[in-house]
Amino acid sequence: MVKIKATILGATGMIGQHFIHQLEDHPWITIESVAASERSVGIRYLDAMRIVHIEHVPDDVANLEVCPIDPKEVGDIDVAFSALPAEVATKIEEDFARAGITVISTARSHRMDPDVPILIPEINSDHISLIDEQRQRRGWDGAIITEPNCTTITMVMPLKPIYDNFGIKSVILSSMQAISGAGYPGVASLDIVNNVIPFIRNEEEKVQVETLKILGTAKKPAEFKVSASCHRVPVIDGHTEAVFVGTEQAAELKDVISVLSKFRGEPQKLKLPSAPQQPIVVRNDEYRPQPRLDRMTENGMSVVVGRVRKDPVLNGVKFIVVGHNTIRGGAGNSVLSAELLKAKGLL
Amino acid sequence: MVKIKATILGATGMIGQHFIHQLEDHPWITIESVAASERSVGIRYLDAMRIVHIEHVPDDVANLEVCPIDPKEVGDIDVAFSALPAEVATKIEEDFARAGITVISTARSHRMDPDVPILIPEINSDHISLIDEQRQRRGWDGAIITEPNCTTITMVMPLKPIYDNFGIKSVILSSMQAISGAGYPGVASLDIVNNVIPFIRNEEEKVQVETLKILGTAKKPAEFKVSASCHRVPVIDGHTEAVFVGTEQAAELKDVISVLSKFRGEPQKLKLPSAPQQPIVVRNDEYRPQPRLDRMTENGMSVVVGRVRKDPVLNGVKFIVVGHNTIRGGAGNSVLSAELLKAKGLL
Amino acid sequence: MVKIKATILGATGMIGQHFIHQLEDHPWITIESVAASERSVGIRYLDAMRIVHIEHVPDDVANLEVCPIDPKEVGDIDVAFSALPAEVATKIEEDFARAGITVISTARSHRMDPDVPILIPEINSDHISLIDEQRQRRGWDGAIITEPNCTTITMVMPLKPIYDNFGIKSVILSSMQAISGAGYPGVASLDIVNNVIPFIRNEEEKVQVETLKILGTAKKPAEFKVSASCHRVPVIDGHTEAVFVGTEQAAELKDVISVLSKFRGEPQKLKLPSAPQQPIVVRNDEYRPQPRLDRMTENGMSVVVGRVRKDPVLNGVKFIVVGHNTIRGGAGNSVLSAELLKAKGLL
Amino acid sequence: MVKIKATILGATGMIGQHFIHQLEDHPWITIESVAASERSVGIRYLDAMRIVHIEHVPDDVANLEVCPIDPKEVGDIDVAFSALPAEVATKIEEDFARAGITVISTARSHRMDPDVPILIPEINSDHISLIDEQRQRRGWDGAIITEPNCTTITMVMPLKPIYDNFGIKSVILSSMQAISGAGYPGVASLDIVNNVIPFIRNEEEKVQVETLKILGTAKKPAEFKVSASCHRVPVIDGHTEAVFVGTEQAAELKDVISVLSKFRGEPQKLKLPSAPQQPIVVRNDEYRPQPRLDRMTENGMSVVVGRVRKDPVLNGVKFIVVGHNTIRGGAGNSVLSAELLKAKGLL
Repeated sequence: MVKIKATILGATGMIGQHFIHQLEDHPWITIESVAASERSVGIRYLDAMRIVHIEHVPDDVANLEVCPIDPKEVGDIDVAFSALPAEVATKIEEDFARAGITVISTARSHRMDPDVPILIPEINSDHISLIDEQRQRRGWDGAIITEPNCTTITMVMPLKPIYDNFGIKSVILSSMQAISGAGYPGVASLDIVNNVIPFIRNEEEKVQVETLKILGTAKKPAEFKVSASCHRVPVIDGHTEAVFVGTEQAAELKDVISVLSKFRGEPQKLKLPSAPQQPIVVRNDEYRPQPRLDRMTENGMSVVVGRVRKDPVLNGVKFIVVGHNTIRGGAGNSVLSAELLKAKGLL
Repeated sequence: MVKIKATILGATGMIGQHFIHQLEDHPWITIESVAASERSVGIRYLDAMRIVHIEHVPDDVANLEVCPIDPKEVGDIDVAFSALPAEVATKIEEDFARAGITVISTARSHRMDPDVPILIPEINSDHISLIDEQRQRRGWDGAIITEPNCTTITMVMPLKPIYDNFGIKSVILSSMQAISGAGYPGVASLDIVNNVIPFIRNEEEKVQVETLKILGTAKKPAEFKVSASCHRVPVIDGHTEAVFVGTEQAAELKDVISVLSKFRGEPQKLKLPSAPQQPIVVRNDEYRPQPRLDRMTENGMSVVVGRVRKDPVLNGVKFIVVGHNTIRGGAGNSVLSAELLKAKGLL
Repeated sequence: MVKIKATILGATGMIGQHFIHQLEDHPWITIESVAASERSVGIRYLDAMRIVHIEHVPDDVANLEVCPIDPKEVGDIDVAFSALPAEVATKIEEDFARAGITVISTARSHRMDPDVPILIPEINSDHISLIDEQRQRRGWDGAIITEPNCTTITMVMPLKPIYDNFGIKSVILSSMQAISGAGYPGVASLDIVNNVIPFIRNEEEKVQVETLKILGTAKKPAEFKVSASCHRVPVIDGHTEAVFVGTEQAAELKDVISVLSKFRGEPQKLKLPSAPQQPIVVRNDEYRPQPRLDRMTENGMSVVVGRVRKDPVLNGVKFIVVGHNTIRGGAGNSVLSAELLKAKGLL
Repeated sequence: MVKIKATILGATGMIGQHFIHQLEDHPWITIESVAASERSVGIRYLDAMRIVHIEHVPDDVANLEVCPIDPKEVGDIDVAFSALPAEVATKIEEDFARAGITVISTARSHRMDPDVPILIPEINSDHISLIDEQRQRRGWDGAIITEPNCTTITMVMPLKPIYDNFGIKSVILSSMQAISGAGYPGVASLDIVNNVIPFIRNEEEKVQVETLKILGTAKKPAEFKVSASCHRVPVIDGHTEAVFVGTEQAAELKDVISVLSKFRGEPQKLKLPSAPQQPIVVRNDEYRPQPRLDRMTENGMSVVVGRVRKDPVLNGVKFIVVGHNTIRGGAGNSVLSAELLKAKGLL
């Protein structure tokens, strides 16, 4: 197989580094270039990182010279993983798509564009049909694909089999989010040590709209009510989320647990390299899931559900789910998306 | 005024010590004796404490000799503050009531007895009418009064004015509870540093039944649905709770904020010594309430509410509330209960 | 007594706010004005604070209009408490001194000037004699007085009675410093949660030179060797320091404990309002001092020493000391310095 | 190669589980049995663990039936890894040695016996000569080998090349130790969240005597002065230690760094399976080593040194070292010891 040639946009920051980690020794993808803002351009990648957030930077990547974030400067590449901040991502990602490159982005900029999928390969792989529409409408040969907010993705994975099997009328989410979700330097230690922060700007809105878009068809969002309350807790990695779901049909707990555990998606069928064997792991120890113990399940690509109980208020179920916010909710999901596109002949 | 003479049952433990702290320089109440289990009996109180959890132990209390937990051994007292573990509290508290003593207990043992009030002086001071019934039925001259679980009390305080003004159809609670709520040694540091524990045994059940009992009449619990999900986070003191409320009548946010802020109860009218001026403080900074910054509001006797928003799922409001779990949710509420009884001529 | 009129330079930042807290209801000092950088000028003080770090801002201060950091704009004041960052403090503090104002500064800028005292009122109150020299030399009517780095002050307090009674040949310090010492936003939570940071820029050098200046005479630093290793730990407030001291004369542990416990300075003799009764508290519980339990001893103005042991390497003693870095090591010591100057007729 | 057959004594506890983790897929060693106290005997191993501290328990081990801690009940084994608490280890380990089994123990019980080595394979592999003496003296065919306290091992590794190249006159240690060092449940969260505990019972004494025994010959401890101050900080894994060393000969920093970086021991020469390639890694980033970032260096088997500076007090060097307390300071070092014995024909 000819390897997919990739660049990383915003490669020196924390999320950019996560891509380096996620792509180390990847069987299908090679890092062809690393792109970052002006002050890093021309510097050896390892020297351009002010702070190293990952355990290991492979030598061949460490020695790359940082190039400008410009489609003409990143070399002959197939895919650009974008770790850009939303403020600059909007235009740059369009420039890359216009240059014929497929952009897979962690930025929120294009998520709600009607012709851009928010892709979780296990959940809505059919949404890649939007790429055709996007190309026609925008007149470009590349594509923009986004991945969801990290809080959304953690919740949507277990919602999917519930939605498919029992229908969903309403969802209430209360999150306990990790500090790495805020990037670096992100949350000041004086704000979070021995404390909870009860607000994360725009997060509740994102969860509410992205959930419906992802669980809908490519053309039409799902229709149920979502209400979120998002909070930050002193945990490094791994979002913990209490989810209350009102179902359309009555759902026995054992049946809910069964559809969660047995859930498989396209990545599992296609045996994609980054696909976890079991995307949703259900634990029956009532003290689980815990972010520190469960976030790395299947290399951080599975979400872990526990404490599945009846919910008397919404007439459905409630449960706790933990997902790794920078792997499944970040670089890991993006790389899996690239693998899906490749397997589908779209890269 | 003749001072109320008090003893503390289980005085050497963490909760017992909180009573010492709460009663220091109290204008109406003096500590007459401190009672603890056999191994401490006969020892000077300060020496009997294996670990000191409070900043200061007044000399006169420090020098008391610990007496047995026996109505005949605690001296001539009016009230016994019980910090006993539930396993032993059931019988001992009855023995004290039978001996003519009023027991105010933080233990869960008698909370759900139909003739025992779960008392929050601002919320259901009328429930003290149960004492008469209790005395007749049980044939004793003393009384047993309980205080709610710390998670319940933090939530019930803001629910009360909403219930009175708009009616409540349903409540969903997701808590982020402090480690001091588990007592000492309680939660192992290996379990909670950089982590969340998604389960607290019996907590969700307690919240569900106690809430209805407190908001009901003395004779009949309120009737609405409550669903709780309780979690522990790495915070020393102060429970943070995300509350979603479905109201009977439509409630404008400004009206909800108004009834919360203006809420006053009997302790405020009676100007009880431990009563906060404003039992529910509403902050309009979206980053509040935070447990570290807000738990000590009015000496830990007020709860602090923030982020009052519409809730589209339950058709009502959602908000965050922080309460100090060992003051308002512990010794502080018990002392306030004693003050209420005194002001009502029941002590 | 005519009250001392004070301004606070850099009033909106974290250290500036600590001064507001420290001066609330002060019997001798009133806050006449609050000065901050351009973007806050003209705004009501409470509104100009982007983040509120203290529990309470008195109404009269909250309503002050922020004025520029300029001697001509701060009103008719006697003393300026400087919470300025070092980069700007050098010149501004000189401008204030030239305008006849006494500046008491937490900034490091002037600490090592030979005619500027680093003042700990209990330790080296005689160093205020430098003010005369400073005025003559610099030709101004005001004065600049500095306070030590927070790590230095915590260690120097117990060193003083050891130095006076037994002589000191050498000191090794290993610190475990609180995150509030780095200001706000300061330390990123991703760097310190579940971690130790083994380096604090310039801190070791400061400890080494300031210690000798403070323990020397006004004219001549003490002469012994100091070696420091400074580290940051996940604690909000309170520096914990392991100190190893080689003494000139053999020192029995009971004698060391005795001179520490009995130590009193000018502030105690003069009964200054902010003076702790016992500047150095020695605890004999081997699990103390702990920052969370001991930092607020005597309102944060005492340091707490424990685990006084023989040190076989330096031929002396080793011990642990905890001090509150933003009170004794910050605004509290500065206010005490102002009180000392007043009592000595220098304000 | 015939595989070494091993049992684990105290297999259900935290340290016992670390052995399971460390031995997973080990090329030379198989787990033949797991032994634990009476209440677990006869139960399937995975079910007998009340709390699972490791990410994965291999199926074949999970399904073992727990056997009693008795040489006659553990099957035909070569080596017993002892994770027993010191109180019971003394006698049991002797029983196993008497039964012809080689015991490698993390317990402190036999460490200071003159005929028992405290083994760090890189540092004092020659001490295994004590086994002969031990067998003659005690009249048994097995052997007892201990591994050092986790704080000792982290410090002794970098001391070794300094001792060999420059000589050591004195050492001062100030530790910031992880909570996992106290076992489970170990440190109460109320004691350590937002806090430092300045005392760990017996730890300073252990560091002082074990260091000299390890760095001496098999027959005679090294002779220099060691003074330790040991403290617990809110870090899950990884001890951080500030070490001050007085050297016999003047030592240039670059030479110290060189001998540390180039240090190799028997395990490297013998290419033992668990041996790190570089036992001591020196980093030149002044913000390193940090426990969270560096503890897993070479799978937790290397210690990481940083901030090598001159020490003016002891006339030598000071530095910071981080070591993984439950891998290099626990199961990892024990497994490496077994590998050394095998390679030397002693197993």
